[in-house]
Amino acid sequence: MTGFGRMPRKEDARFVRGRGTFVDDVRLPGMLHSAVLRSPYAHARITSIDTTAAEAHPKVRAVLTGADLEERGLAWMPTLSHDRQAVLATDKVRYQGQEVAFVVAEDRYSARDALALIDVDYEPLDPVVDARTALDADVPVIRDDLEGKRDNHIFDWEAGDASATDLLFESADVVVAQDMLYPRVHPAPLETCGVVADHDAVTGKLTVWATSQAPHAHRTLLALVTGIAEHRIRVISPDVGGGFGNKVPIYPAYVCAVVGSMVTGAPVKWVEDRSENLMTTAFARDYHMRGELASTSDGTMLALRVRVLADHGAFNCTAQPSKYPAGFFHVVTGSYDLRAAYCAVTGVFTNKAPGGVAYACSFRIAEASFLIERLVDLLAGELGVDPAELRFRNLLTSEQFPYVCATGWEYDSGDYPKALQLALDTVGYTELRAEQERRRADDEYLGIGISFFTEAVGAGPRKHMDIVGFGMADGAELRLHPTGKAVLRISVQTQGQGHETTFAQIVAHELGIHTDDVEVVHGDTDNTPFGLGTYGSRSTPVSGAATSVAAQRVREKARLIASALLEVDPDDLEWTPGRWSVRGAPDSGASLKEIARAAHGDVDLPDGVDGHLDGSCVYNPPNLTFPYGAYICVVEVDPGTGQVKVRRFVAVDDCGVRINPSIVEGQIHGGLADGIGMALMELMAFDTDGNCLGGSFMDYLVPTAVDVPPWELAELVTPSPHHPLGAKGIGECATVGSPAAVVNAVMDALAPLGVRHADMPLTPAAVWCAIQGRPLRADLAIE
Amino acid sequence: MTGFGRMPRKEDARFVRGRGTFVDDVRLPGMLHSAVLRSPYAHARITSIDTTAAEAHPKVRAVLTGADLEERGLAWMPTLSHDRQAVLATDKVRYQGQEVAFVVAEDRYSARDALALIDVDYEPLDPVVDARTALDADVPVIRDDLEGKRDNHIFDWEAGDASATDLLFESADVVVAQDMLYPRVHPAPLETCGVVADHDAVTGKLTVWATSQAPHAHRTLLALVTGIAEHRIRVISPDVGGGFGNKVPIYPAYVCAVVGSMVTGAPVKWVEDRSENLMTTAFARDYHMRGELASTSDGTMLALRVRVLADHGAFNCTAQPSKYPAGFFHVVTGSYDLRAAYCAVTGVFTNKAPGGVAYACSFRIAEASFLIERLVDLLAGELGVDPAELRFRNLLTSEQFPYVCATGWEYDSGDYPKALQLALDTVGYTELRAEQERRRADDEYLGIGISFFTEAVGAGPRKHMDIVGFGMADGAELRLHPTGKAVLRISVQTQGQGHETTFAQIVAHELGIHTDDVEVVHGDTDNTPFGLGTYGSRSTPVSGAATSVAAQRVREKARLIASALLEVDPDDLEWTPGRWSVRGAPDSGASLKEIARAAHGDVDLPDGVDGHLDGSCVYNPPNLTFPYGAYICVVEVDPGTGQVKVRRFVAVDDCGVRINPSIVEGQIHGGLADGIGMALMELMAFDTDGNCLGGSFMDYLVPTAVDVPPWELAELVTPSPHHPLGAKGIGECATVGSPAAVVNAVMDALAPLGVRHADMPLTPAAVWCAIQGRPLRADLAIE
Repeated sequence: MTGFGRMPRKEDARFVRGRGTFVDDVRLPGMLHSAVLRSPYAHARITSIDTTAAEAHPKVRAVLTGADLEERGLAWMPTLSHDRQAVLATDKVRYQGQEVAFVVAEDRYSARDALALIDVDYEPLDPVVDARTALDADVPVIRDDLEGKRDNHIFDWEAGDASATDLLFESADVVVAQDMLYPRVHPAPLETCGVVADHDAVTGKLTVWATSQAPHAHRTLLALVTGIAEHRIRVISPDVGGGFGNKVPIYPAYVCAVVGSMVTGAPVKWVEDRSENLMTTAFARDYHMRGELASTSDGTMLALRVRVLADHGAFNCTAQPSKYPAGFFHVVTGSYDLRAAYCAVTGVFTNKAPGGVAYACSFRIAEASFLIERLVDLLAGELGVDPAELRFRNLLTSEQFPYVCATGWEYDSGDYPKALQLALDTVGYTELRAEQERRRADDEYLGIGISFFTEAVGAGPRKHMDIVGFGMADGAELRLHPTGKAVLRISVQTQGQGHETTFAQIVAHELGIHTDDVEVVHGDTDNTPFGLGTYGSRSTPVSGAATSVAAQRVREKARLIASALLEVDPDDLEWTPGRWSVRGAPDSGASLKEIARAAHGDVDLPDGVDGHLDGSCVYNPPNLTFPYGAYICVVEVDPGTGQVKVRRFVAVDDCGVRINPSIVEGQIHGGLADGIGMALMELMAFDTDGNCLGGSFMDYLVPTAVDVPPWELAELVTPSPHHPLGAKGIGECATVGSPAAVVNAVMDALAPLGVRHADMPLTPAAVWCAIQGRPLRADLAIE
Repeated sequence: MTGFGRMPRKEDARFVRGRGTFVDDVRLPGMLHSAVLRSPYAHARITSIDTTAAEAHPKVRAVLTGADLEERGLAWMPTLSHDRQAVLATDKVRYQGQEVAFVVAEDRYSARDALALIDVDYEPLDPVVDARTALDADVPVIRDDLEGKRDNHIFDWEAGDASATDLLFESADVVVAQDMLYPRVHPAPLETCGVVADHDAVTGKLTVWATSQAPHAHRTLLALVTGIAEHRIRVISPDVGGGFGNKVPIYPAYVCAVVGSMVTGAPVKWVEDRSENLMTTAFARDYHMRGELASTSDGTMLALRVRVLADHGAFNCTAQPSKYPAGFFHVVTGSYDLRAAYCAVTGVFTNKAPGGVAYACSFRIAEASFLIERLVDLLAGELGVDPAELRFRNLLTSEQFPYVCATGWEYDSGDYPKALQLALDTVGYTELRAEQERRRADDEYLGIGISFFTEAVGAGPRKHMDIVGFGMADGAELRLHPTGKAVLRISVQTQGQGHETTFAQIVAHELGIHTDDVEVVHGDTDNTPFGLGTYGSRSTPVSGAATSVAAQRVREKARLIASALLEVDPDDLEWTPGRWSVRGAPDSGASLKEIARAAHGDVDLPDGVDGHLDGSCVYNPPNLTFPYGAYICVVEVDPGTGQVKVRRFVAVDDCGVRINPSIVEGQIHGGLADGIGMALMELMAFDTDGNCLGGSFMDYLVPTAVDVPPWELAELVTPSPHHPLGAKGIGECATVGSPAAVVNAVMDALAPLGVRHADMPLTPAAVWCAIQGRPLRADLAIE
């Protein structure tokens, strides 16, 4: 393969043979193991910690408490959003599972055993579990560690034109309103989090192997947290088994492992178990939303008004880029031509694990997309218009691009009506509606749910993103060796997306060489240019662009070297894949391989041309890219049990140019499964004492093969006009777009039974209760 | 420290605490160990090899023979000079110690034990030991593996203007001629050679930890030898305990370790013992030279004529860049203004280990410098002129630079007479001569030896170097992290020269930041730009220049980013160390740290400026640099025992700008000791059966602290006009310059006894025999 198209993933050679190297596969001579003692309480004061017995364990090498870290100034770690997070609790514990002590031992069993030997006295406090009561006068103040903090309020934030929005609502014929909960869910990657920290007291160098989506950002964070100079820290993210936002933050145990290595003088491994991952690492969503949509009587949508109560848990986790949900607001009008929008968000602390972070999508686009798509369906119901028809009346048309939406972002390109029509044609919409009609007569509840979504990905220029601290530029460095083989170094880190294949294809495409001749290096900060990592579907939009430009620069440098080699004017050379030839004399030319050899010494280089054959680019995206899609979900609901069966799922995606369609489709498959999971079963629940009820895969349900239908995919290709390859990104699209299709389908099925809305997850119990008119968690509306 | 000057070496923090990581410190999970079975004969046919018993050893995992390698096409490896070298002998063994079989076992002891279980039948052949008889009609043909080879002749090569030289000789008043042997010596680094090879059958990736002076060149060589694609090979050269040319080639056991790893599926370590290092790895010199120097009667030197018989051993080793001694010729006129020179060299194969390679200096400058300096002293004796005075009459003057010598190279800069005068003043030449006179009257033999040398280093542009395959460009990449800390990646590899300090000082000097804030990365091909490695004193001349230019590019990029940050025109900014400020308003400005932060996202970059703060350079030297020096050695000789005592050694070096004078002086100290060793004791001898008589430090003597005097150093600084820092390189200078000073001193001491010349090493036996008029090895002249 020398360019774009379907090819097997290069990395699968090791994965299918079980020869990947994940953090837990890293074994270093003399390596120690560790375990974390966690709080059983959601909210409690720590009155004493006695580690004497644990320290006496013959295989224990170190026991760390908050007091030990405090001596080093490491008991708290700063977060990107100017909050701080406890590394090991010193004063209080603020959520169940919070880190209280850290044991380093010769093996993992001993470390775990020693946890039971640590004696902690807790004085339980009332927990704040329900975000809706977090601001009440009589609730305890969770973050009394913050100076002067007298309540659980984090921020009030508003965006949009409130008066224009209000005017449009006043003039509207119809307004639909709905309270919705996008519940707390967990990314639940296959591989849990983990770290191996190896501090060398002599050189001062810290090497950290971590399950990381963002090795460079983690290096900077570790430098800020530990005080070790950034250039002495090396973060290696080896093979990573899924991320989905879960591996964007650094976690307290990472810092403990570093300190453990400093204290013991040996490498220290820490690998999370499943419960720890589910109970304490980055959650997402937890948005209590009230949406209002104004429309004319003929279904022309006018304006949107949204209020959100955002539950951030006990801390803003380290890598949450901003406490303000700017992304949420900017895409809240979805794929429609609305005239105004207004959004007000209040953030609160609760006694839950730190949440409020990425899980496809980091910019809260998943919540926004769900909200607008539910409101559109509610409006269709109110107007008695077919939901597909209502969307056709309001979707942006291709003539409108580039389109500056009411919230200020500039959508790049697309053909939305064509996508929706393709989805309807693929599913056989008319026949399905007829079937639905027929079966309703037999008391069979078929539901057809449509969702249309626009993702904003790639993390564009700084002015578009209220990101604290970093711009969104990523580097790519391409080097051809003397034998003509290429090594590409990229800043983004794969967690299974197939970067080693996709990025090799980009180089192959630009240079006309074989993908086998391109090695893709990533995941090692000592080895790769700086960049922000993989999240927000940004790898292809940003690093893919950097790679493309770097390869073009190599091609151009090759032209200059070829001109010296062939002794002709550079302007007389023409490019055919893999070769510069003299125009009009195709036999006179030099292959890239020959040029690479010459660049290492066989030719006197033109003035101003450095030796070797290489090129690099730090790509600063001029804008976000906007992939979009039209999804249709078909469900059958059993009103007696509340059981939902997903019968079909049609997904039409337009992510621009597809470099490797198989990989793109794999990403879509995963995202659709994600969406079905969130819509139907995933929920990180808490009881009134703040106990986490999602601490295992017995309790926190994720979809399996039996829960999902065969996928029916179709595609459009509208290249992004400002991306060098025309690619837009795909990673999060289906996760963003699919939940609304499923929920809309279930509500469509239940419409004859008078059900207007029910909150996710639509478990059998939730559906059954909704049919009974007693919706579960129906009390979540914001007053 | 923020620039040039004396500072402790950064790397010594780990070395003085024994925390360096050398190849033998590399321990990998599941790693196997290995040993090489070597030939006891210098020349023999192999009739059979039986490995059955070795394979049955319970801890042996693999036994490789030449036949096994032949199946893989790996029995021979190509060399840079278009020869080939046996990896494991298939047909014959051609020197004592040649590799015959390779055992991989679970531990080193078992691997060694199993060697004794391998049964090899040899049919001994007559060895060719004396290069002077290698071309005789009746000697065996050593390299009968080469098609059509009917003798032991490798090449005849001549350079210079023979007729102009002959004319000058005919018109000369005086001609001195001398046969000299520069004997076979060994670099004898503190750390022997070694390798850990780890081949991953799944990914196809080969990682090799090697004691390497040239990791990138070794990667290319390993790719050419093994057929593994270059971009799948990673060569890591960790801390290296001395090189001196010994670690430029790759050795047969390296290839065996790679194959061993492929066969066993485990990493394989091979570490040489001292005897293996001394007997089989890269030797140097072994030049039988006849020099003739023509002069007017007033001591104006006119022309030089040289014939050389070069003993290359049984193979040209892998990394010998060229079989032709171009460097030898180009500096053969030394530091003097000669009108013509002619040189003819014949290379021959002998039954000795592969030689003919680098040992300070790779370009045969050591041999050339020794030759001319001996001839100058002989001429002084012939004319009855003081050797210092004769040199003053012929040394280049500072007005003559840039000076194109008779052999065509352009010397860059210097003040030679001043250097010699400084040396004479430092040693107190006049008083010493008076003392010598006095003591001769008491039959005490004080000798004063002068040498003047010009080194050609840095490995200049391709047109100056007949180097097969590679140009001499080296890369440097400098990156400032968001926190302003810098990482410099360089292509050259330290073997103890203090690169981590010197190169940090170059960056600090250019950027005005602290050396603590600069991490220097090298020795890992996955991690550093391509370059040819450290030899020929080229690190500072080439990579130092690349670093300087890369840092200047960072500074310039910082200016453009600062202009955006400060919203002023770039032309209105002025540089003070570490900071760009608005001209005339020094308080308005930005530190490099602030600019680095901004470059990662806080500022909208100017058009055409990529994000991040980095810069790189591949430096293609426009010329060689020419450090030089004047050395004076004072010895006392006991004519009764032949014992030579070095009483004083004055060294005046001009290597241009000194980045870290302490490191420069350390290099000089080492080189002076080297020179005393070669002059007085080092000799790799062979008996008539081809048995190597230098297989341990009991037999191959190297100088220790008791053999060397306190050094008396003085310096001149004439910056190289074409090097961005004015530096010229120092690594090999003293090794090149000092042997002639020692030998000249001994000959000066013995002059009253009628001794005109004796060959190195001037052991007590050699000196005593010379005094008796029966010089040892006096029969080495070329007919």
